[in-house]
Amino acid sequence: MLKLKSKFLNIGAGRAVVLLNKDDAEELSVHMSDRVILKCGKKSKTAIVDLSEKGVAKGEIGLFNEVKKEISGCKGRVIEVHVAEKPESVQYIKKKLDGAELKQKEMDAIISDVVNDRLSDVELSTFVAASYIRGYSIDETAALTTAIFNMGEGIDFGNKVVDKHCIGGVAGNRTTLLVVPIIASVGLKMPKTSSRSITSPAGTADTMEVLAPVSHSVKKIQKMVKEVGACIVWTGAVNLAPADDKIIRVRHPLSLDPQGMLLASIMAKKKSVGSDFVVIDIPVGKGAKIADINQGKELGHKFIELGKKIGIEVDCLITDGSQPIGIGIGPALEARDILLALQGKGPQDLVGKACDLAGKLLEMVGKAQKGEGKAMAQEILNSGQADRKMREIIKAQGGNSRIKPEDIKIGPEKAVVKSKASGKIKHIDNKLIARIAKTAGAPKDKSAGMDLHVSSGEDVHIGDALFTVYAKSKEKLREAIVLANKLPAVELGGIILEEIE
Amino acid sequence: MLKLKSKFLNIGAGRAVVLLNKDDAEELSVHMSDRVILKCGKKSKTAIVDLSEKGVAKGEIGLFNEVKKEISGCKGRVIEVHVAEKPESVQYIKKKLDGAELKQKEMDAIISDVVNDRLSDVELSTFVAASYIRGYSIDETAALTTAIFNMGEGIDFGNKVVDKHCIGGVAGNRTTLLVVPIIASVGLKMPKTSSRSITSPAGTADTMEVLAPVSHSVKKIQKMVKEVGACIVWTGAVNLAPADDKIIRVRHPLSLDPQGMLLASIMAKKKSVGSDFVVIDIPVGKGAKIADINQGKELGHKFIELGKKIGIEVDCLITDGSQPIGIGIGPALEARDILLALQGKGPQDLVGKACDLAGKLLEMVGKAQKGEGKAMAQEILNSGQADRKMREIIKAQGGNSRIKPEDIKIGPEKAVVKSKASGKIKHIDNKLIARIAKTAGAPKDKSAGMDLHVSSGEDVHIGDALFTVYAKSKEKLREAIVLANKLPAVELGGIILEEIE
Repeated sequence: MLKLKSKFLNIGAGRAVVLLNKDDAEELSVHMSDRVILKCGKKSKTAIVDLSEKGVAKGEIGLFNEVKKEISGCKGRVIEVHVAEKPESVQYIKKKLDGAELKQKEMDAIISDVVNDRLSDVELSTFVAASYIRGYSIDETAALTTAIFNMGEGIDFGNKVVDKHCIGGVAGNRTTLLVVPIIASVGLKMPKTSSRSITSPAGTADTMEVLAPVSHSVKKIQKMVKEVGACIVWTGAVNLAPADDKIIRVRHPLSLDPQGMLLASIMAKKKSVGSDFVVIDIPVGKGAKIADINQGKELGHKFIELGKKIGIEVDCLITDGSQPIGIGIGPALEARDILLALQGKGPQDLVGKACDLAGKLLEMVGKAQKGEGKAMAQEILNSGQADRKMREIIKAQGGNSRIKPEDIKIGPEKAVVKSKASGKIKHIDNKLIARIAKTAGAPKDKSAGMDLHVSSGEDVHIGDALFTVYAKSKEKLREAIVLANKLPAVELGGIILEEIE
Repeated sequence: MLKLKSKFLNIGAGRAVVLLNKDDAEELSVHMSDRVILKCGKKSKTAIVDLSEKGVAKGEIGLFNEVKKEISGCKGRVIEVHVAEKPESVQYIKKKLDGAELKQKEMDAIISDVVNDRLSDVELSTFVAASYIRGYSIDETAALTTAIFNMGEGIDFGNKVVDKHCIGGVAGNRTTLLVVPIIASVGLKMPKTSSRSITSPAGTADTMEVLAPVSHSVKKIQKMVKEVGACIVWTGAVNLAPADDKIIRVRHPLSLDPQGMLLASIMAKKKSVGSDFVVIDIPVGKGAKIADINQGKELGHKFIELGKKIGIEVDCLITDGSQPIGIGIGPALEARDILLALQGKGPQDLVGKACDLAGKLLEMVGKAQKGEGKAMAQEILNSGQADRKMREIIKAQGGNSRIKPEDIKIGPEKAVVKSKASGKIKHIDNKLIARIAKTAGAPKDKSAGMDLHVSSGEDVHIGDALFTVYAKSKEKLREAIVLANKLPAVELGGIILEEIE
């Protein structure tokens, strides 16, 4: 143990880190990324060690903001710094590396240490890599799901809570904003928590935010759901799965999606809001996250199996993910499409898909006979019930319930990209479309993005408009157009399919 | 691109990191652990992004010390911050995760990015985990070795350069300090670079430092080897394998020793000093790093095969690693043993083993006939030639060449640990002995450690001295003795081997 003078660095490190002078670290026999326990009065906090030769003097300890909070009142005071034993969970990570199947209590230990900042980035990345290579059994996946759920703040909404989820990857696929009001119209509870965009031009939370605030407390969410039956809020504002956010941080740099982690991450959040019935949208096809339909089916079976293990009835729809859905891509443009769709004037592919999903939920819950859910959903939409319900939701969340599609601010700069040839459209690539919309400024500029004027299989002639790009500034617009002219986002097919030499 | 005002944080992060305000990061579309390129005048530097809500204001960028150096002269000035593409090597890490065998140019890209701080801890840890689980082919190991070697600063010593290496794990096993002067006595060049302790009570560099300074420049090392034929210096002071140090930093927290990395790390350093002949000591047995002799042999064959691929003749000795070697454990106590051994008065197991290793080298180089190397080494030692050569080396490195064993400062506090029973010594555990010596203060306190008075197979009676612990202070001594009384470091065997019920 050493007694060191605390020094607030006034810098956030994104996790609980302290800075030790190299000499003091040597004295304590701790290395970079080891853990120490800080004690100040009755308070104590575990932190990860970072080393410095000059940043802090011998006899001092530098506290990043994340540590400061919990050792408040100790500025300038002497802190006891104890060497912490390696947490037990490090052994379990090693076990996973060596190919073992982790048990519930081992997953619990890992996830508890993740949430409490007792694992360094090195250890956490190793856990993710091991999970990726070794894979999870269904029992292990259920154990991780339960561990994540247990460490989060659950919200109770009573019985018959329904939910939907899409694994993502399809531009413009904003079905949630239609499914939720349809479902809530028949008196079912649908407390929908959604994410913001990570790599796409818009997440559901980004799009909803065009219509109403999405950051709400648990208390407020409970009140809204009680009053109007549903909400569409940002997951990040509630503490449903704190472990998940910390794991995603290290999954991002290598875009690692270990399937067991993906499943657990999604289902733990569903469990946290007490979902009883969940429908999952799995888009497959060229340019989607999953190219092969059989892989999509396999994933679907795993969701269903996992649901059984943790007490959620799951149904999966394998959908066509080979091209974008709807017209608008980007928060404002998508929100406009949603308002149009609620008035019966929206893009038909988006409306059809939303009714498929909502219909499936209506059947699962027993509100509709098998095979009749979609028609019921469509009827709810056509009757104007869903539109009224959506406006109740918007109002409950603090938005303008009288908003009209034309009120939504778009652009103001815009340019049309035209076809340079004639032919039949063979493919519209989700990833390339997303890149163009992001270059235009989405999702940070809510009003940026694009309207897509064509779809696969359509004939186009030279000079026909393919899409319109919207941006806040001329510079952003130019950047997006330069990219659009470079990328084969809309691909025309010729007559010749193959050439045999 | 954003223009941000630079702010020196005056803190080291251990790697090239910059702190961005969350809003600016969002503007740039960069996440935690992404990379940016900083440009200031003609200077440019890649750095890893860390995020902060309050540590730096919007419009500012915080520079940790490692970045400051290369963007000097830019304090308070505006820096251009560009989003860096993910380095190509991230793809290769992903390939390795997916089980592919990496090619030379892929390993080169990874190692170049490691050295130039273009990989985050997350990416680097993932590479280590993937290497650990997937393993390396011998070609891949050679590719990594070559990549590490290429990125380091090689030193040329001309022809017939010999070297030795021990994979470690045996307390007191300080043979290098005898092998080097024996070999240099016959006119061979042995520019030995050694490490400090990482987890043991003494590394070779720590022990040598009791006799002479070990941090020398490449120029100085070349001069010394030219003049006296050999040196025993600290690897860390020269830039032989900068990649290696950065990889070891992330291997440490989970004690991950992917075999391919271990082999490459050792052999790249041998190649860097131009070694032509290398003998490798692989201790095996209970309490050693490798318990099983067959595993030891397998490792030995890999060293030999790798040597062939990279042009080094390698011979391996599988040695008994089931108990400590010599008497003293800890830098000063080991240095004392070495001086005694050079005068013909040292521990016989240490002397015998050193002569085995030196003899093997003499045979490999053709100085001795096959089977006659050990006797020749012993003769060089007995004649006093090795003692004179060692004193030349000590002098060349700036130490006192007239130092006598009794000049070496030990303790001053000491206590004898006695046997609590009578019996035959069954096992002396390297790891437990090391823990006691470290608790006494070694290697940070050079004079701390222990003298071991017994060895396996010996009969002891109740009250016989097992070992003497030395420490700088009464507190340290007491801590070590408490531990010694708790741990079964010296284990007595009974007559009953097994009990069948």
